[in-house]
Parts: sequence; C-alpha cells; structure tokens
Amino acid sequence: MSATAQNTAKNAAPKTAITPTRAEDFPEWYQQVIKAADLAENAPVRGCMIIKPYGYAIWENIQRLLDDKIKDCGVQNAYFPLLIPIEYLSKEAEHIDGFAKECAVVTHHRLEKDAAGKLVPAPAAKLEAPFVIRPTSETIIGEAMAGWINSYRDLPYKLNQWCNVMRWELRPRIFLRTTEFLWQEGHNAFASAEEARADALHMLGVYREFMENSLALPVFAGEKTADERFPGAIATYTVEAMMQDGKALQAGTSHDLGQTFSKSANIKFQGRDGQEHFAHTTSWGVSTRSIGGLIMTHGDDDGVIMPPAVAPYPVVIIPFVKDEAGRGAVIAHCQKLAAQIKSLGIRVHVDVTEERSSNKMWKYIKSGVPLRVEVGDKEMAAGQVTVTPRDLGKDAKQTIGTDQFLAELPKTLMALQTRLLDRARKFRDTHVFDVKTVADIAEFYKADKMGLVRADAAILNDPALVAVRKEFSLSPRCLPFDAPGTVLIGRSY
Amino acid sequence: MSATAQNTAKNAAPKTAITPTRAEDFPEWYQQVIKAADLAENAPVRGCMIIKPYGYAIWENIQRLLDDKIKDCGVQNAYFPLLIPIEYLSKEAEHIDGFAKECAVVTHHRLEKDAAGKLVPAPAAKLEAPFVIRPTSETIIGEAMAGWINSYRDLPYKLNQWCNVMRWELRPRIFLRTTEFLWQEGHNAFASAEEARADALHMLGVYREFMENSLALPVFAGEKTADERFPGAIATYTVEAMMQDGKALQAGTSHDLGQTFSKSANIKFQGRDGQEHFAHTTSWGVSTRSIGGLIMTHGDDDGVIMPPAVAPYPVVIIPFVKDEAGRGAVIAHCQKLAAQIKSLGIRVHVDVTEERSSNKMWKYIKSGVPLRVEVGDKEMAAGQVTVTPRDLGKDAKQTIGTDQFLAELPKTLMALQTRLLDRARKFRDTHVFDVKTVADIAEFYKADKMGLVRADAAILNDPALVAVRKEFSLSPRCLPFDAPGTVLIGRSY
Repeated sequence: MSATAQNTAKNAAPKTAITPTRAEDFPEWYQQVIKAADLAENAPVRGCMIIKPYGYAIWENIQRLLDDKIKDCGVQNAYFPLLIPIEYLSKEAEHIDGFAKECAVVTHHRLEKDAAGKLVPAPAAKLEAPFVIRPTSETIIGEAMAGWINSYRDLPYKLNQWCNVMRWELRPRIFLRTTEFLWQEGHNAFASAEEARADALHMLGVYREFMENSLALPVFAGEKTADERFPGAIATYTVEAMMQDGKALQAGTSHDLGQTFSKSANIKFQGRDGQEHFAHTTSWGVSTRSIGGLIMTHGDDDGVIMPPAVAPYPVVIIPFVKDEAGRGAVIAHCQKLAAQIKSLGIRVHVDVTEERSSNKMWKYIKSGVPLRVEVGDKEMAAGQVTVTPRDLGKDAKQTIGTDQFLAELPKTLMALQTRLLDRARKFRDTHVFDVKTVADIAEFYKADKMGLVRADAAILNDPALVAVRKEFSLSPRCLPFDAPGTVLIGRSY
Repeated sequence: MSATAQNTAKNAAPKTAITPTRAEDFPEWYQQVIKAADLAENAPVRGCMIIKPYGYAIWENIQRLLDDKIKDCGVQNAYFPLLIPIEYLSKEAEHIDGFAKECAVVTHHRLEKDAAGKLVPAPAAKLEAPFVIRPTSETIIGEAMAGWINSYRDLPYKLNQWCNVMRWELRPRIFLRTTEFLWQEGHNAFASAEEARADALHMLGVYREFMENSLALPVFAGEKTADERFPGAIATYTVEAMMQDGKALQAGTSHDLGQTFSKSANIKFQGRDGQEHFAHTTSWGVSTRSIGGLIMTHGDDDGVIMPPAVAPYPVVIIPFVKDEAGRGAVIAHCQKLAAQIKSLGIRVHVDVTEERSSNKMWKYIKSGVPLRVEVGDKEMAAGQVTVTPRDLGKDAKQTIGTDQFLAELPKTLMALQTRLLDRARKFRDTHVFDVKTVADIAEFYKADKMGLVRADAAILNDPALVAVRKEFSLSPRCLPFDAPGTVLIGRSY
C-alpha cells in the first residue's frame, strides 16, 4: 500500500459497501466492485470472462457511440474470419515474435470417442496446416485488401470490424487482460506515408475525445517508445489513463504500420505516375479493457460509478411503497415518469421488485447508477421526486418538483458526467511528478508514492534506468504530445 | 434444370446483368449475384467467408431491428466465452452426437519454430484438456445459469448473445452454410414446461414477423419432425422460406429444450413449494444465412434486390453531370437532397465518383438499391428528380417534383417492401403442391418440378418414403401451423 493510500485509509468512513476499500487493497477492491455491480465473472475457461448483462450493456453503449464516430471518419464495417492460417503470420517476422507466441491453436476439426469413451480430437481429422485464433487481424485483412486495392483511386481504403480476439494470457485479470476479449480493430490503407501518419494520429484523436467525453477518462495522448511499439509498426500512438492506484492503463492505440504489412501481404496499387507502389497502412483498436479503466477511475468504496454517457441506465426510479394497498398507484406513477424520461432519449430503469427499499438503494449505489430517483406517496401527492446523484451521495439528495426535474435532467446528467471527468483529471494531474534523474525515479517508487513520473526523454538513454524499471516494474508509458521532449514512466495495467 | 426453369429460360430477356440467369443455373447465379453486389467472398480459410462492407451493412441492419424486438421480450444481452471445455459437451449425450462431430478443436496455446524454422504448435504448450470453438452455446450458458438461478423469483431468466460460431462444414456455401457464421443465440429458462413451450413459440412468432416485415420473406411456421429436431430438444419450431428454385431455407429456429440441458448443467431452483426443481429452457437463433435467403428470394437476373427495411441504403442519388463546369452545382444540390432524406430517418448514398453514369446505373441495379434517384441539370432547374424502383425497372421510371418525392418517400419505400413480400408470397403459394401418396411425391420430383409438396402427416410413417427421400434429397421441412395434420416435404438449403 502506498503512503497516500495509507493516509486515505485512516480517514476512511468506517462502513463501506465494498470490502476491502481502495486504500486497503486496490486489486481486491476491483474484483469486489465487479462482483457487487454484477458486471462480469471469470469463465470456466481459464483466463476468459463471462460479461453479464449489466456489464455488457456498457459495452453496447461504447459500441454505439464509438461506431458512429468511426463511421464519421469514412470507415466501413466488415467481418473477417476468426481463424488465421499460420503461413500468414510467418510472412511478417516482427509480427510473429509479437503475436505467434501465446495464441490458441486449432489443430483438428472433429472430436470422437476414444476406447475409454472419452471425447478426444479425432486423429483422422488432424488439419494439414493448423490455424490460430486471431490475436489481431492485420495479416488476414491485409491479404484481403491486397485483392481489393488496385489503383490510387481505390485509396484511402478504410475498414473496421467489431469482434472477439484471443491472446493466451498468463496472468489474466477480468476486463483488463483476458485471454478472449471484445474490441474493434480498424485497418486503413493510404497512398502515401504522410496520409497514413495523419490517419493514425487522427484516429488517436477520435479515441482521446471518446475517452474523455464518453467514458470521462482524462488521458495522456502520445507516442510509444520504440520498445513499446506494436510488432511491425513504425509508430504506435496511445491514450494512457491513470487509475486511482496511480498506475497507467493503455486505453486505446493507433499504429502507423508504414509498409510493413503492405509488403508482407502485397498490398500494391498503381499510382498516378503509372507505377506500382506499396500502400501505407494503419491499425487502431479499443477493447473491453476500457470498462476496467472506467471502474478503476470512477469507482469509490461503495462501488462503481457509471458515467451517464455509457451507463446501462443513467436513471433508476425506485418506488417507495408503504402499504400494499397503495402499491399499484405508486408503480403506475413511476412508469409514467419513466416514459417521460425515455421520451427525452434517456435510458431509465424502474425497479418494480418487492425487495426492501433499503436493499434497492444499496444495489443501485453498488452498481453506480448516476441518478437515483425515489418516489413514494408523499412525493407523488406533492408532484415531486427525491433525487440523489451517485457521485455526491446523500448530502446532495434533494426533493424537487417533477417538472423541474424533467426539464433539468439532460443538464443534470451532463453536469454529473463533467464532475467525473474533472475529478479524475484532478486526481491524475496531482499524481504526475516531474523528476530529473533515474535516482529521483527510484526514490519516488521506493517511498511507495502513487502516480507517474515525467522526465526529459533523454532519460531513456540512461543505462541505469534498466535496473530501476525492473525493480519497480516500470515502463515508459508515452512521449506525451502536451509536453514535447518528455517521457511519462510508471507502473501499468 | 427443372421444366419450369427451362421454360423461363426460353423466354428470358437476351441480356441480363448476371450470367448465368436463374433459369440457366441457379446455384451459379447465386454466386455471381453475391460477387456483382460485392456482398462477400470466400476466405482463405476453407469454408469461411469475408463479409464485405455492403454485405455487412445488411447484417448490421438485421441486428439493429431484431435486437430491439428481442429486448422487447425482456431478454438481456450478454457475452459468453468462445471456447467450450470438452467435458461440457460430454455431459449431454444427444448434444454430443449432434455437435461434437465436426467442430474446430483447440489443442495448443503457443506456436514455436521447429528445426526447419517453420511455425508449429509448441509441444510444451499442449493443453491438458482441449477446447472446441462453440458450435452453439447451450452447454456453457447452461453452466453459468446454474450458478445464477436459485429461486423461482429468479425466473424467467432470459439471455441473448450476438456472436460468431463455428461448425466444420464439408460442403460450405457462402452465407448459407459456412464454417464460421454470425448469429444471435437466445437462451431462456422457466419454472414450468408450459412457460418454456409458450416462449419457444413466442420467439418463433418474433422471427416470423421479422422475416416477413423486415426481410420480406414469407415463411411457413411450424414444428420440425422428431428426426429433424435440434440435438437435445423436445420440440424444434422453425420458419421455412422458399427460394426461387423451389428449395426451402430454414430461416430461424426456436427450441423447447425441456429439462435436457437443465439436467446436464444442473439448473435448479427452489420452487414456491420449497422443493428443488430443474428449470425448463429454450434456445432460439437467427444467423447470417438469412442474408442468403434474402438474395435467393428477391434477386432477379440483374442481381440482388434489397428490401428497404434492411438495405444498406434504400435510396441512392446519382448526379448526372453533363459538363465539368456544372459538376459542383449538381453535386451540391444532390447533397442537399440527401440531407433532407436523412432527416426523414432514411439511409441514403450519393455517388460522387467520376464513374460514367451508365456504369453507376448498372452498379446500383446489381447491388439492388431499392430506389435510384437521378438528378441532372434539367431536373435541378425544374425542381424535379427522376426515380426508378429497382423491382419494377425502367418501365416504372418517373420524373416528379422533389417536394412530392420527399413527401411520399416513406410510403414509396413501404410500397416497394410490400411488393417484394407479395411477389415472394405469390411465388411460394404457387409452388406448394398437395399430394396424397409417396408415389405422387416421386412423380412430382421425377418430373423436375420446382417447389414443396404438402401431404397428410401420416405419410411420414410410410416405409416407402425413405427411398424417395434419398433419391430426390428430400426432407420433411415442417408440420405447418396453418395446415394442421399436414407435413411439408422438399429439397432444402
């Protein structure tokens, strides 16, 4: 536990919905928050997860919002095969080293019962050439593009797919690093190196805007150092968020692949000059790990807090039923209110279960619904609602007229979204420390401080950095665009 | 070729955009239509397909429309792992026989270079227990549900996932039968047998309505005979469409699984009576094969015809540019028109390429865009547009005022959608023949007639049927709800 965290622990309220608290044990808090909000669970397949309905609804909202932005860039969605022939991987040397290492290999196409009656891969159904389950699709999409691109008139060519990918993880962690995960992977091809670079940076900008405005994650946008590049890329750009334990999380990456994949897959076009040229390609992706980033950025000791833009439902209405006789009337009133909220284009849930009201309250606190709206006999009679914003808690609870509530609702949710972003930005900005030497870095992490350090990029050439990186599990996160000539270094997910 | 088809061939117009025509060679026509509309192509992975942007856009529209209907049934989306432990399959005997046979088996989790430098599965990374890539997910979802369902209060429990699945196909056919395909698979659990049966029928009704109203596919809804049931189901319900070669296509199925999977996966709940009971489950799915059904139902000898409800864009605007000087003005005018169409909630595409106008016309005929709108100098000056509905062709071409066009557009598209459904229904209804005996069936197919035969269901018990089924590759398609006591028999995809 860091010094800052210990300090927080002393001042922590005695009772929280999540045990342990963030200060007590951040990794375990993370697991408990996911469980309490019913977002996901570990699957019986090692390293894989089951994304439960409440967690999947976040992903659906991410998909809808990000897909629109991607399409606005002139990108078209398509779908490519799950299985990749091994020979495709073999064509690109760096890519093999990066990806062929830990991936799922399909070797047979049939099961049969053995002598003991046990199901086993049928020896007669062994594939002549095995396949891997895609860890990423540069190779197979590149091969297809090679057949579709002929002339400079076909460029730029912009494709995206939403799919599952698989990388055999040795230390899996739910949402953050799972053997199977969901993502979008974009693959664009251009006539010139300049256009490819500009596109890689443009897509990073799309991610930055999405992370900040939709997930309320303030991010450092920057370039990865050569060692941290995607295998085969000539430049990898990244958006790095900061979690509440001071670790960085790579929330999205965009790669300028130069001609690496166009040469291995033979993506050629006839230029305006009549000559054949290799295209310049990019690829860029955001995955379900962004949900992990959202949890670790906004959660508190009572559970997750959902940014309204991606919350499964930004508003929950909880009918307070005093006596069974009045039950129907209160619920009908709440349903009517829900319909009015829906007509504003805002997702809403009415909890009509017979669970005790206090249990319901805690349920929605733990699942981080941005606004809890209570309606009982009293409110109903007075034409009022009692509203509690999740991030400010019961001190901010207020009873207001229903008309006023509805009129202000879009603004109220926007304000909550902005508060989450501002709070996260403040946390981040107070946890980045300027250092001068490798010794400063060692001292910082030896003192168990939380956060990232920022140094002159020349520090990357200091041979002493190697040992310090190893001792404290540090890595250069990026060369941030907002502070040219510097590098951000720290721990990461 | 059937007699009817030969007859059609003689009368066919001499020039069509697709070669061969439907009458000449229906299976090859199908492949050529897909190519001409740039919908999909065979992947380098045997039996798999690449769904290209124009084809994938249909799937996105199917997803959006069907997902809303599924959610209206109180079903929540979730995501379960791609890989299924073999032991799960082993638990359910009938299911093994149905699915464990031809599926992709993952046996290793790493590749390495062998002595010759070739990438091979690393022997040290052999999995203790192999996995199969899901052919369907009853087993893994059942295991998860068993952990989530405790009491009758948790029921009904309704889940759906949109995902890829894989069944090693020996005779693959693009969209219709591919090794990997995309689908939604719903999995619901209930307290009673009656509720499960009612749900399976209800979801079939949702499919029927979707097939007819969105894809314009008239379908026979009915029950499968015992032999044709999903492995493990106590009843399988189906919607069967008819293609233009008279063959049936199973467009969606809904299964009453009884307690088969709840017993193998141990999905138990405490009932109102305080006792433990096994749940009753259902599963139901629609896949990318429905796109194949759409093509073979609505296409003509000039290519595919898209029903407006799922067309990537129901309207295309083609600027007719006479001289380069006027180019900018015509295109600006078309863009403005497109914005007006979009504001009606209708998808639209403006073709601003410099391709020759006649090439553009043929492109959109082959890609089946429901309405082609031409705008040249003349139309622009007169405040008019020239509109051609794809299904009626140039005889129905008319030049009308832009305001009238816009005012009538939703109705115009709806009318086109209805025409496609009506035409398909008429074709279907004139290609179902009532027969009395097995000899009648043999005679029908021996005469090379196109279509399905309908007989008293008792015919299924006639031992002579076996040989006739085999000789003409027939199968009972369903026991149709609209003609109780009968069975529909025929060829199928």
